[in-house]
Amino acid sequence: MKRTTFFLAFFVASITLFAQQKLPYQNPKLPVEDRVKDLLSRMTLHEKIMQTQHIHGTNPSHSLLKLDTLYKGISYGCVEGLTHTAENYAQSLITLQKYMLTKTRLGIPVMTCAEGLHGVVQDGCTIYPQALAMSSTFNPDLINKMTKAAALEAKAIGIYQVLSPVLDIARDTRWGRVEETYGEDPLLIGMMASAFINGFQSQNVVCTPKHFVAHGSPTGGINLASVSGGERDFRSMYLLPFEIAIKNTNPLSIMNSYNSYDGQPIASSHYYLTEVLRNQLGFKGYVYSDWDAVDMLRSYHKTAADKGEAAKQAIEAGIDVEASSDDYLDLEKMVGEGKIDIKTIDQAVSRILYVKFKSGLFEYEFPNMKKLKTAIHTKESVAIAREIASESIVLLKNDNILPLSTEKYKSIAVLGPNAGNVQFGDYSWTRSNQFGVTPLQGIQNLVGKTVKVNYAAGCDVWSQKKDGIAEAVEAAKNSDVAVIFVGTQSASLGRDYKDATSGEGYDLSNLDLPGVQEDLIKAVKATGKPIIVVLVSGKPLSIPWVKDNANAILAQWYGGEQQGNAVADVLFGKVNPSGKLSISVPQSVGHLPCYYNYLPSDKGIYRERGTLDKPGRDYVFSSPDALWNFGYGLSYTNFEYKEATLSSESLTDKDTLNISVQVKNAGKMDGKEVVQIYVRDVVSSVVTPIHQLEAFKKVLIKAGETATVNLQLPISDLFLYNKDMKRVVEPGEFEIQIGSSSDNIKIKKMIMVK
Amino acid sequence: MKRTTFFLAFFVASITLFAQQKLPYQNPKLPVEDRVKDLLSRMTLHEKIMQTQHIHGTNPSHSLLKLDTLYKGISYGCVEGLTHTAENYAQSLITLQKYMLTKTRLGIPVMTCAEGLHGVVQDGCTIYPQALAMSSTFNPDLINKMTKAAALEAKAIGIYQVLSPVLDIARDTRWGRVEETYGEDPLLIGMMASAFINGFQSQNVVCTPKHFVAHGSPTGGINLASVSGGERDFRSMYLLPFEIAIKNTNPLSIMNSYNSYDGQPIASSHYYLTEVLRNQLGFKGYVYSDWDAVDMLRSYHKTAADKGEAAKQAIEAGIDVEASSDDYLDLEKMVGEGKIDIKTIDQAVSRILYVKFKSGLFEYEFPNMKKLKTAIHTKESVAIAREIASESIVLLKNDNILPLSTEKYKSIAVLGPNAGNVQFGDYSWTRSNQFGVTPLQGIQNLVGKTVKVNYAAGCDVWSQKKDGIAEAVEAAKNSDVAVIFVGTQSASLGRDYKDATSGEGYDLSNLDLPGVQEDLIKAVKATGKPIIVVLVSGKPLSIPWVKDNANAILAQWYGGEQQGNAVADVLFGKVNPSGKLSISVPQSVGHLPCYYNYLPSDKGIYRERGTLDKPGRDYVFSSPDALWNFGYGLSYTNFEYKEATLSSESLTDKDTLNISVQVKNAGKMDGKEVVQIYVRDVVSSVVTPIHQLEAFKKVLIKAGETATVNLQLPISDLFLYNKDMKRVVEPGEFEIQIGSSSDNIKIKKMIMVK
Repeated sequence: MKRTTFFLAFFVASITLFAQQKLPYQNPKLPVEDRVKDLLSRMTLHEKIMQTQHIHGTNPSHSLLKLDTLYKGISYGCVEGLTHTAENYAQSLITLQKYMLTKTRLGIPVMTCAEGLHGVVQDGCTIYPQALAMSSTFNPDLINKMTKAAALEAKAIGIYQVLSPVLDIARDTRWGRVEETYGEDPLLIGMMASAFINGFQSQNVVCTPKHFVAHGSPTGGINLASVSGGERDFRSMYLLPFEIAIKNTNPLSIMNSYNSYDGQPIASSHYYLTEVLRNQLGFKGYVYSDWDAVDMLRSYHKTAADKGEAAKQAIEAGIDVEASSDDYLDLEKMVGEGKIDIKTIDQAVSRILYVKFKSGLFEYEFPNMKKLKTAIHTKESVAIAREIASESIVLLKNDNILPLSTEKYKSIAVLGPNAGNVQFGDYSWTRSNQFGVTPLQGIQNLVGKTVKVNYAAGCDVWSQKKDGIAEAVEAAKNSDVAVIFVGTQSASLGRDYKDATSGEGYDLSNLDLPGVQEDLIKAVKATGKPIIVVLVSGKPLSIPWVKDNANAILAQWYGGEQQGNAVADVLFGKVNPSGKLSISVPQSVGHLPCYYNYLPSDKGIYRERGTLDKPGRDYVFSSPDALWNFGYGLSYTNFEYKEATLSSESLTDKDTLNISVQVKNAGKMDGKEVVQIYVRDVVSSVVTPIHQLEAFKKVLIKAGETATVNLQLPISDLFLYNKDMKRVVEPGEFEIQIGSSSDNIKIKKMIMVK
Repeated sequence: MKRTTFFLAFFVASITLFAQQKLPYQNPKLPVEDRVKDLLSRMTLHEKIMQTQHIHGTNPSHSLLKLDTLYKGISYGCVEGLTHTAENYAQSLITLQKYMLTKTRLGIPVMTCAEGLHGVVQDGCTIYPQALAMSSTFNPDLINKMTKAAALEAKAIGIYQVLSPVLDIARDTRWGRVEETYGEDPLLIGMMASAFINGFQSQNVVCTPKHFVAHGSPTGGINLASVSGGERDFRSMYLLPFEIAIKNTNPLSIMNSYNSYDGQPIASSHYYLTEVLRNQLGFKGYVYSDWDAVDMLRSYHKTAADKGEAAKQAIEAGIDVEASSDDYLDLEKMVGEGKIDIKTIDQAVSRILYVKFKSGLFEYEFPNMKKLKTAIHTKESVAIAREIASESIVLLKNDNILPLSTEKYKSIAVLGPNAGNVQFGDYSWTRSNQFGVTPLQGIQNLVGKTVKVNYAAGCDVWSQKKDGIAEAVEAAKNSDVAVIFVGTQSASLGRDYKDATSGEGYDLSNLDLPGVQEDLIKAVKATGKPIIVVLVSGKPLSIPWVKDNANAILAQWYGGEQQGNAVADVLFGKVNPSGKLSISVPQSVGHLPCYYNYLPSDKGIYRERGTLDKPGRDYVFSSPDALWNFGYGLSYTNFEYKEATLSSESLTDKDTLNISVQVKNAGKMDGKEVVQIYVRDVVSSVVTPIHQLEAFKKVLIKAGETATVNLQLPISDLFLYNKDMKRVVEPGEFEIQIGSSSDNIKIKKMIMVK
């Protein structure tokens, strides 16, 4: 197209646009449904198909002219610009959206997307702790505060949709994406996800709960692998976080999962994506495909012979937006050939338009480049990042050494490969230390010149190289105490994946500390100095030797940009740790799976029947127990569970049980406790877990004070799927277990459901 | 009861019996159904209930008087006498059956049972190789020959039912019972089981295929644990061996499994035990509970509040005979209370009587004690045991060292904890060396004085004790070559379970060689002498170091009483090895699951999509490959696959594809090859495995000769369960893969199914 022709086309488009200014779909005052209907009726088939498509990356240097050669006057469904700083992406979105709104025939805006798992991913935005760390806070309010702040950053850049959060239930910890999850418990995941989504939605940023559905226990722990399970497991477990989140937040987007479930790829399943998700759970937004998930029906699952077939399967199942692959382009021809019903296309496009209208995208607020720098990475958001990082640290062991006294310990060895590096975790753009505070820096910030810090990495997180260990040993010998930061290192979305041992695509066949990190710990231990081990990792690692031999152990996971300050605060007692494990820690990879809510048959017959409880049968060389269980986490103070009262001991499934627990902080330091309610269905027509988390609440209790903690438990939550796969609350006894952890139940009460 | 009263009672009973001599049920010429109906009509409720019960053990010293105090003139359903030699058990059965036939009111014989997994379990009978070894022969004819011989031993003792074979698909090799299975492939299991059952049934010995159903991949590898899976996995995989066996053999008994599947205990499932097993597969015999499986509904699965509820659930589901627990006794009262329908009891008892009539038990042939000794452990049966043992050995690696030349190697170190011990495996009565030939003895038998044998155990199979290794190293230094026998050791039914690392209840959380066995191998390797490692084990062990460093490796599994002679024959080339792996060997426990017929999504995305195939993503430190794959096994000769012809390249699901393969023995030694046919469904509406074994045939080919091997593949076997869970053969392309192993496909052909 010549330049003059181009401007002529622009002119015509602009005139058209002008003429349509009064068209119904452009009127924000009309109901969304009417706007969708009107706009759809004006679209060509080609325009419709292009609404299902996704633009991969944008370039801030693109002119309107360049954009026209790319998009030819047609609006696309969505855009995501991974490869940008906040500033670049904002600039790109201004140009791109201007093009879409003013230079396409119908002026349909493109949905502006970004990753946002633990903060908006563009460089310059606040990097919050990774999802697994967030869930360890057991504090949904904090997550909500975080996403409210992150939403402001998103909007400042012009981002209207984030491709988060992850609602997968992490049941195979070999999987590299465990770090992206909220752990192993459906309720905790559902509550964290709800808080996350509501925070973003408070600023009209669309969230994308993912991956729907049953994605967290891939065969072999291998990313994208199939999941084995039946309808009961699906409904009682895998679906539950989505059910909770949809009920609490009514999200506008959902991302399908890559995996098959019982041989059925989710991406080609009308049952999962339409019957369950829409008809049963009432989801009304669009289903956004995971990257390449449509074409994987052809290339990977082998359920489609070609792209057209893959497209047909996916769109008929209920995937509206196709990301990464472009199989839906074949649909245009297939409509003409009668191979697919135009109604199917219209349905997908209607949903896309619905989300665009509903989210206010048609009234797009362009980012203000002048204010951008002051709108992101604010003092407030950094403070929230630090608060979450502090609350996410789990104290796993403490032989009275923590908090460290700067009186007693005048020199400290800060050791280990994760001491001098930040570990943001996957779904950050960067791994650069410049964007975060390393543990070493955090400790130095805190102790200043009062304590001498001797630093040595000792080894890396990955290789078999032992030549640095001697230096670490020397540093320990010269110090009163050693703090050793070990764990994993994740890939970043910036494609910095050297030596990654966690993150998407980085699965482990062994859950011991990678490389020679345990050798490092053993060598330092041999100096006789007290050792504190801090796990900076994307997953629970199996560290039985460390459990037996360290003087104290912290699990920090990936603590975001403030991780160094947060861990220093906890080490030196500026913050009393209050994190709890959102995922159980297995003794070894051979002890998987390791979740707390196992079935009564699943840890050996002698245990459950009470006749024997020892290694030698079931596992010959060890017990099947976890190293640490879900819900576990110590404090520097001591909480006493005084008594609990129930609102009733006889209820129906219409009732809500109110539980009131008296908890005393019997120690000398203020602290936060997570009161946890587990329920055991005493006798059930199908097998139910030994117990299941049904409520939790985190409370601050001052030293010496007693708090009354009130928790609500709707009896309808005590459902199961019976033999006929009907959801019912079965009459009978339920044991209400009130405690500080799944393996530390303090008070038990029985209720009768009629 | 006084003695006179007792004899009076006997007298009355005898008169009654006499009077009934002409009753219909006592007439063998009447149809079985009529006899069942007649007998049932004469029984009291109490007599009926007692038919569902099982007598645990018998005592050869019991008199009729003693039996009467135990059984009170009532016949029981079944008896199993674990704790006996062949002679003692035969004697017990004579007394017990005489009592049942002549001293109970209706003269109903008790079903006489025994374990018979790899030979009749009573001491004195022939001990054949363990099931996993049997399946490694890939030779169903041999298994059939074995059970025909074992049936003669059973009948000589008076045993009418064996509680075998095991049809579980071994998918989690941590499980201790892997050794009892025929491995990981549904077809191989089905064919082996069919051959097994038909052999026993040729002598009217009832078999008990078990464990119905989906029992071979317990969660965590822990015995009795739940299994996760859906309807498609159930029908396409777990059910298949049973379907094949029922179709081929029409067995009279089935044993239910302990586990739950998708939350539903099999023992309380009408769906699995009646709808599927009877209504769909056409099973007509009785369901025999696994030991205590009825009461475990109460004690273990917690689906029943008390014994009566457990009994009701189990009998209504379809369990007819209750073994070990006695919950069914509560049913008598419950009938009166209207809590259970008498028709349910009648149905169970009818099935029990049906089996008893059908098997000829009413015409019981008492064992002849004079002939017993010559009827068991015959020369013929021992020869069969040796033949199976020889064919079951799998040659995994051979750096041109095997067969061992007695010219070249004038001294041999026979080392390792399994060199001087027999390992029969579980479901033998004994672990005593006196009943079998150890590898050391076998080698000594073979070499006589031509070769000097230096023996040292070096270590045990279990502990961390290394003090014996020096002696083994010394023996190696004094020899030209070292053969090291390592592996596991199983519990026996004789309750000799010291240091067991395999067998029922002995699950492993680590699949490396237990104890210090690998240290032993490394120490011997360090001498510089060539080393041959023989795995005598109940499961595949993860031995990557051994794979890289041994000069040759054999997997013998548990070779039965002739294991020593068999392995000597193979080591020295008297027998050319022809075993093939019936189960894949994982690189480590963290690489589980490890079956060959995985879904295309399950070993990492880069592999299947052909863009990358290296460690670093998916598993960071290793590939997800097996160490050795299903179907693998070397020979001392070399087979060349010349060409293959198909009867047609275009077929319907009514057709059978005939495959004719030319295989040449291009080496210098006669040998047996297992020609294997795998099929890949190129595109399928639901996900299907990358390929699946669909036919196999073992053939002897003389050196230099070419054999034409004909295999049949009914196209109806290429079914899948589609989205609507309908069993269909989908039209389209199927790739026919002809090869020597699942990972060594020699010829590929495409067929089109219309």
